[in-house]
Amino acid sequence: MQRCRELALVSEERDRLTRPYATPAMARANELVGSWMREAGLAVRTDVAGNLVGHLPGAERDAGTLLVGSHLDTVRDAGAFDGPLGVLAAVECVALLHERGAALPFAIDVLGFSDEEGLRFSTAYLGSRAVAGTFGPELLDVRDAGGVTVREALREFGGDPEAIASASRAGDRIVGYLEVHMEQGRELERAGLPVGVVSGISGASRAEARFSGVPGHAGTMAMADRQDALCAAAEWVLEVEHLARERPGLLATVGRLAAYPGAPNVVPGEVSATLDVRHVRDEDRLDAVGVLHARAEEIAAGRGLRLTWHTRPDNPSVAVDPRLTGALERAIAGRGLMPRRLPSGAGHDGVALSALTGIAMLFVRCRAGVSHHPDERVEPDDADLAVEVLADAVCSLAA
Amino acid sequence: MQRCRELALVSEERDRLTRPYATPAMARANELVGSWMREAGLAVRTDVAGNLVGHLPGAERDAGTLLVGSHLDTVRDAGAFDGPLGVLAAVECVALLHERGAALPFAIDVLGFSDEEGLRFSTAYLGSRAVAGTFGPELLDVRDAGGVTVREALREFGGDPEAIASASRAGDRIVGYLEVHMEQGRELERAGLPVGVVSGISGASRAEARFSGVPGHAGTMAMADRQDALCAAAEWVLEVEHLARERPGLLATVGRLAAYPGAPNVVPGEVSATLDVRHVRDEDRLDAVGVLHARAEEIAAGRGLRLTWHTRPDNPSVAVDPRLTGALERAIAGRGLMPRRLPSGAGHDGVALSALTGIAMLFVRCRAGVSHHPDERVEPDDADLAVEVLADAVCSLAA
Repeated sequence: MQRCRELALVSEERDRLTRPYATPAMARANELVGSWMREAGLAVRTDVAGNLVGHLPGAERDAGTLLVGSHLDTVRDAGAFDGPLGVLAAVECVALLHERGAALPFAIDVLGFSDEEGLRFSTAYLGSRAVAGTFGPELLDVRDAGGVTVREALREFGGDPEAIASASRAGDRIVGYLEVHMEQGRELERAGLPVGVVSGISGASRAEARFSGVPGHAGTMAMADRQDALCAAAEWVLEVEHLARERPGLLATVGRLAAYPGAPNVVPGEVSATLDVRHVRDEDRLDAVGVLHARAEEIAAGRGLRLTWHTRPDNPSVAVDPRLTGALERAIAGRGLMPRRLPSGAGHDGVALSALTGIAMLFVRCRAGVSHHPDERVEPDDADLAVEVLADAVCSLAA
Repeated sequence: MQRCRELALVSEERDRLTRPYATPAMARANELVGSWMREAGLAVRTDVAGNLVGHLPGAERDAGTLLVGSHLDTVRDAGAFDGPLGVLAAVECVALLHERGAALPFAIDVLGFSDEEGLRFSTAYLGSRAVAGTFGPELLDVRDAGGVTVREALREFGGDPEAIASASRAGDRIVGYLEVHMEQGRELERAGLPVGVVSGISGASRAEARFSGVPGHAGTMAMADRQDALCAAAEWVLEVEHLARERPGLLATVGRLAAYPGAPNVVPGEVSATLDVRHVRDEDRLDAVGVLHARAEEIAAGRGLRLTWHTRPDNPSVAVDPRLTGALERAIAGRGLMPRRLPSGAGHDGVALSALTGIAMLFVRCRAGVSHHPDERVEPDDADLAVEVLADAVCSLAA
């Protein structure tokens, strides 16, 4: 926890934590976390994609490597725990295994991924995709707000964009990927549990609904004559909320809504509204999107409006590995706690790594579900427990 | 109708009609309409506030002056009839009275007001307020989007800002004010009537409701934990619509709505929404605003949100003069038509002139309620009838 706080001071911005991909702050973070890794007995390097890697050799040459980690980049004005908690928990886990005198057959690579939030290039998982071997060369040409490409940023950072494929672990024998992460929700807090096991990473569908009616003078257009696009959109916003409240595990959000022309004395003729739908089961997610599309059509038709529906590329859900997840559950149960399973609504590096290997995640209770905010908070006892559970799980995988 | 079309070509913008206060286009419009006024036997001048005035002397020195007119300025991308129809109907009315050989005891001033829409200075009735004697000196310091003050614009136009009080007719004996205007609604069209008489000009209340909840990650914040400001605002938008549909004569509109932070994957933490409420009876309007404020409070409280309510200065309703209105009604009945009364939801120059004298308005049927748009349309037969009704009413007032 102390180290999370210390690391949170390493920022591109004065007075708040903002640590984007391939920036001087990220280089300082890698240096600091690298020093802690060395202290824990790890051999440290930064890979060609800017990921920090701490290596602990295994006893058996053919037993492969277990990957454990999270990300070191942050959103703008971030908290201290989203990402770093998982990296530092992995470092502590290695230290604890050393204390216990555990002899593991497989090697452990502790990973501090360089880009999970996608703050700088609006494209997430640059670091973990490189490790998974799914970093397409077109990603090198993506530009940040200042026009700098990933290629240029990575070269400036000391990485090697032309050799990005060499960061891939696809040819190696990989045991799996384990990640500790703060929950970013309130389920564990409500259940009174310090940790929980991720049952899967929810897929996300995104769409935009556009209701087109007829604008008019707020003082002269009779109520009966109106085709008010905002009233139609309002009905639909409530349908979105209603469906998500009714169906277990479904999250549905209208995050952006704009009414045109947007003058106080003009009946809105057009409204566009975004839809974000998540569910850990893809079929439930897709069914919900279908229902909400149909409801939007019905509402528009019922009011004499026209609906335009745009679907954005969706992210399918990611399953967790039963063996790795079982190891975490047994480790929790071994501490006398209920091994609660809960879905992850947010994406994580595990999404990218699932292309490479089986993944499992341990969620740590956080306060009031706050994340992506300086008020992020994790209790020290909960973090300690997470490290112990992680170490127990690693030992049980080794057994 | 021909002249309305010709006048619509006099614009500040190429290919569309935009004629703001105290612009070269307005000067050309005054010149053109002035030439038609002279043709009808009127003595023409432009007053210090930029209003065009065509004077027809009366037979009796003490009988005072009847004001008849409307405005010559327009909104951006305007139609040909909102304003000009009333000025040109007044000119035609004078020509028709001359044809009939009518000898009126009172004088007639045909007025082409210079600013009713408020397009340039976002403050309406600059011309009619000058005539009514309610043009406060602070109005001279109002600036347009380019930083030019009313004072500077008026001086450039050839007016005299320092002598603005001399445009006031408050010291004169004024018989009343009559205005012909297109309806801007569909009531007459629905009733199959070419003209109708305004029963009063609706007052307008304006407010802004701000719902403050808690923003959150669309993928991690459970539905049960949300304090979604957009869902609260959506409920309220539908309440606004419901109340207005339920109460006769009430118009209520949410024209502008903004959700913050406004990202597709973030639960909205704050929403601001405007409210525009109109009713010809002030007590009904104020009661509706009270009900909608209370509903917003209930909705916010029910969802654990905070409501902030800002009231903007309101416009009380304006009553019409029974004698002038009666004259219009008798004139309509005299043509074998039902003299239908209907409220005006929009403001008009009569709002300003009601501080000076009694007012009455004759509405002319328009197509599909379209106004403030190039598609504005009035049928020639309806416009002819309006001129005849106006002339009959003037004669009956003279009798």
